[in-house]
Amino acid sequence: MNGADRLCDTLLVNDVDVCFANPGTSEMHFVAALDRKPQMRCVLGLFEGVVTGAADGYARMADKPAATLLHCGPGMANALANMHNARRAWTPMINVVGDHATYHLQHDAPLTSDIESLARPMSQFVRRITSAEDVGPAIGEAYAASLSLPGVTTVILPADCAWGSVEPAELKRTQVPAPKQVDQAQIREVAGLLRKHGSRAAIMLTGSALREGPMAMAARVCAATGAQIFAQMSNGRIERGAGRVAIPKVFYPIDMALQQLKDIDLLILIGAQVPVGFFAYPGKPGRLVHETCHVEQLAVPGDDLPGTIEALADELSARATPPAFIAAPQAQGEALPTGTLDADKVCTIVARLLPENAIICDESVSSGRSFYYDCHGAPQHDYIQLTGGSIGEGIPLCVGAAVACPDRKVIGMQADGSGMYTVQGLWTQARENLDVVTVVFANRTYAILHGEMRNVGVNDFGRNAKLMLNLDEPALDWVSMAKGMGVEAGRATTAEEFARLFKGALGRKGPFLIEAVI
Amino acid sequence: MNGADRLCDTLLVNDVDVCFANPGTSEMHFVAALDRKPQMRCVLGLFEGVVTGAADGYARMADKPAATLLHCGPGMANALANMHNARRAWTPMINVVGDHATYHLQHDAPLTSDIESLARPMSQFVRRITSAEDVGPAIGEAYAASLSLPGVTTVILPADCAWGSVEPAELKRTQVPAPKQVDQAQIREVAGLLRKHGSRAAIMLTGSALREGPMAMAARVCAATGAQIFAQMSNGRIERGAGRVAIPKVFYPIDMALQQLKDIDLLILIGAQVPVGFFAYPGKPGRLVHETCHVEQLAVPGDDLPGTIEALADELSARATPPAFIAAPQAQGEALPTGTLDADKVCTIVARLLPENAIICDESVSSGRSFYYDCHGAPQHDYIQLTGGSIGEGIPLCVGAAVACPDRKVIGMQADGSGMYTVQGLWTQARENLDVVTVVFANRTYAILHGEMRNVGVNDFGRNAKLMLNLDEPALDWVSMAKGMGVEAGRATTAEEFARLFKGALGRKGPFLIEAVI
Repeated sequence: MNGADRLCDTLLVNDVDVCFANPGTSEMHFVAALDRKPQMRCVLGLFEGVVTGAADGYARMADKPAATLLHCGPGMANALANMHNARRAWTPMINVVGDHATYHLQHDAPLTSDIESLARPMSQFVRRITSAEDVGPAIGEAYAASLSLPGVTTVILPADCAWGSVEPAELKRTQVPAPKQVDQAQIREVAGLLRKHGSRAAIMLTGSALREGPMAMAARVCAATGAQIFAQMSNGRIERGAGRVAIPKVFYPIDMALQQLKDIDLLILIGAQVPVGFFAYPGKPGRLVHETCHVEQLAVPGDDLPGTIEALADELSARATPPAFIAAPQAQGEALPTGTLDADKVCTIVARLLPENAIICDESVSSGRSFYYDCHGAPQHDYIQLTGGSIGEGIPLCVGAAVACPDRKVIGMQADGSGMYTVQGLWTQARENLDVVTVVFANRTYAILHGEMRNVGVNDFGRNAKLMLNLDEPALDWVSMAKGMGVEAGRATTAEEFARLFKGALGRKGPFLIEAVI
Repeated sequence: MNGADRLCDTLLVNDVDVCFANPGTSEMHFVAALDRKPQMRCVLGLFEGVVTGAADGYARMADKPAATLLHCGPGMANALANMHNARRAWTPMINVVGDHATYHLQHDAPLTSDIESLARPMSQFVRRITSAEDVGPAIGEAYAASLSLPGVTTVILPADCAWGSVEPAELKRTQVPAPKQVDQAQIREVAGLLRKHGSRAAIMLTGSALREGPMAMAARVCAATGAQIFAQMSNGRIERGAGRVAIPKVFYPIDMALQQLKDIDLLILIGAQVPVGFFAYPGKPGRLVHETCHVEQLAVPGDDLPGTIEALADELSARATPPAFIAAPQAQGEALPTGTLDADKVCTIVARLLPENAIICDESVSSGRSFYYDCHGAPQHDYIQLTGGSIGEGIPLCVGAAVACPDRKVIGMQADGSGMYTVQGLWTQARENLDVVTVVFANRTYAILHGEMRNVGVNDFGRNAKLMLNLDEPALDWVSMAKGMGVEAGRATTAEEFARLFKGALGRKGPFLIEAVI
């Protein structure tokens, strides 16, 4: 057996059994090894951004990493933007990047590049394999790091390490380091601070703290102390809907966010980072809490976030306190919007018709700002979203979520400008017959940038600004593009048409795309 | 005026008047400044790989750099693959990457990343702007570096440097360093070696040495000494066709390349690198010339390549020697192929029908291996190709070439798998009404990888290998995808249909795509 076989076996012994792939010549031995492992599910992406975005969506829903197969530095470069988003979501991922044989690097062949320099900014762990026998240890380390950091790991596989021989060995599951213990002294201190600050305190969550149980426990703490609760602006996954905590997220528009947090004097971060402006704006602060707000980082993403929240609840004797902020079910039987379609009507219709146990992948950017709030009382669902601000993650996220959860409906809320970045992902939805409904908000502009231009004082656009901020002339025809990649699709210009198409899509299995012209 | 205005003015005073763009929020002041400069042509790409691929195609044909506008580290990450190809073509390029305001970086906002680490592997020059007043000097340095290295330059523009004030100033064109002088002693030595080795010597060219004049001069040297002539395996641009030098390129398949170069005892490199295998293959050498071949690097890409060749011709008294290897015009009036379409028939038909002064952008990968040779005697044309092996450059190259040369027909020879990487570029062809015919070789596989799998000894593919190497199930429908992006298209399954569609496309202006099902 060779190093590539050992690679597959090390993944499989750790229950990593999905590989999103876009292979090249230097990975042929890896492909051949995968071909000898029918228990590994290989999913092809026609562009590397699809591959890593899908691996991100998969791991967010499967709670374990997928592997990816990427081709040399330039192939991995295509994957970096969605590695960045995954890194910001603390998603476990094991990227395997093929490289030239070790002895071939000296020749500076055309595809040679500094893979480490490219990988580090978007990876929490980078490791170059040094021999065929080093493949197993390297993949084991990456697996453990992906779950314990947690985050994106990148392993560089020189071709001769893939084709080199290894001794057969009985593999054992890799030990993953236990998360850091909760610091009881800090718990006591934070509990005291929460008691003292009452409603001027807030708990801010991300990561595994946003699952149903831990979030409800945090809401018990809030009920006991009067504290507010927030999720970060962007998060890997939130379990939500009627009966769960209706947790607000920090707003994107800077003035709204400053307003939202202006009265917070104590901010307890559980996994979350200090909230900051997505961008700097002249004359506005970078940190969204006020200057004298006391910020306490109680736990970071690699820590035991649920355990931390439980310890806090215990310290406050709040385990049995009924949780605050539980969402009531949305009103039933209300009439759906009618008439000319707009973004808000799309959001309302999707929220009202949302099926139980759906997975929403949100890259709606400016069009879907109300959508998250529309869904507080919808049937229970998972909400996963663009995390790092690098657009082009939505369609791939749907791919990954649907691979992870074949029995659940995946609904992609997709801005049109963003969707074009990784539009190739539609083909993978068709190839794998994934149960995804993609709703494209076809406003035919980079609407978010229209707003930002106004923020810098430009209200009257000339030719060059229009050319760079509008996507019309020609309008994108999403129905034809989807058809070209094997995905059935329909176009809606009225709310009635949209509701009819959306109901139809919910009633069938397999990918469907709706171009909502707004 | 602000730093962004100074940026535009510095570009314009240096005659850099095209900006391929995909902007984001941190670049809004740059967009606003571009909007105040109608003399700057702004071309939107719906994905950053389109932007840098187009800038590459533009500069190869315009012989001057374009600017690009990219959004933060992750946006630039999407651009890296085609920066890599441009770097391998020694293409001048000025990438302007927006970043957070300097004082905002400390907050690690979602889009924050280590831009320098990402940029360096794919840039010959990287520079971070430090203040608004530093914008002009930084862009000037990048301009000079892009032409003198020559190559890809990346300038990082923090938002506060774009919006900060600068004093008005009268700008002057930036001085570009003169290329290194020819070393007459080395010329004499090489001339002596060429005389000595006769037909066992070869001159290998790339860069500006592949224009009509210098290449003909090199062919005079060959005629005078008996030396052979080669172009690198991949090159930025070759001026070719009937009456010009029919220069062979180094083959991609390793065994063919080794055979091609096996008798060369003296290799004179003028701009070119030592030929090496595109990949390493077990048991095969990395260098394509034999171990005792004497390799002499006479000039590197930043040097005066035409001057070097002239000096060599002078030393050999070959200026008036009739050049060797001049291509005779292809036979006229031969019947075109008929019947079921295949890749070779597509190549033959395009070569036979090629219009005078066309620009061919070749990313045909395995399907078009014969095409380059089919065109030796075709009407004179420019040939530009994928250089760095990072697929997804073809459609953007066509965009850039057509922007640079609006009066010339651009013909994209496009593999289907590669085309999907930057398929969004078709929209830019429609938006700008560019005169491009894209011929898609729809073989519905990664055909090159089928060959490489056989190279590693796998002839019988299982389910996983098929899933990763085939693009069928579902077949891509290029006609619908093109229509979705506003490009008219047709499909051909016979040689007659292909010839009819290709003739029709040549007879009109504006973008057209032909899906050649092979």
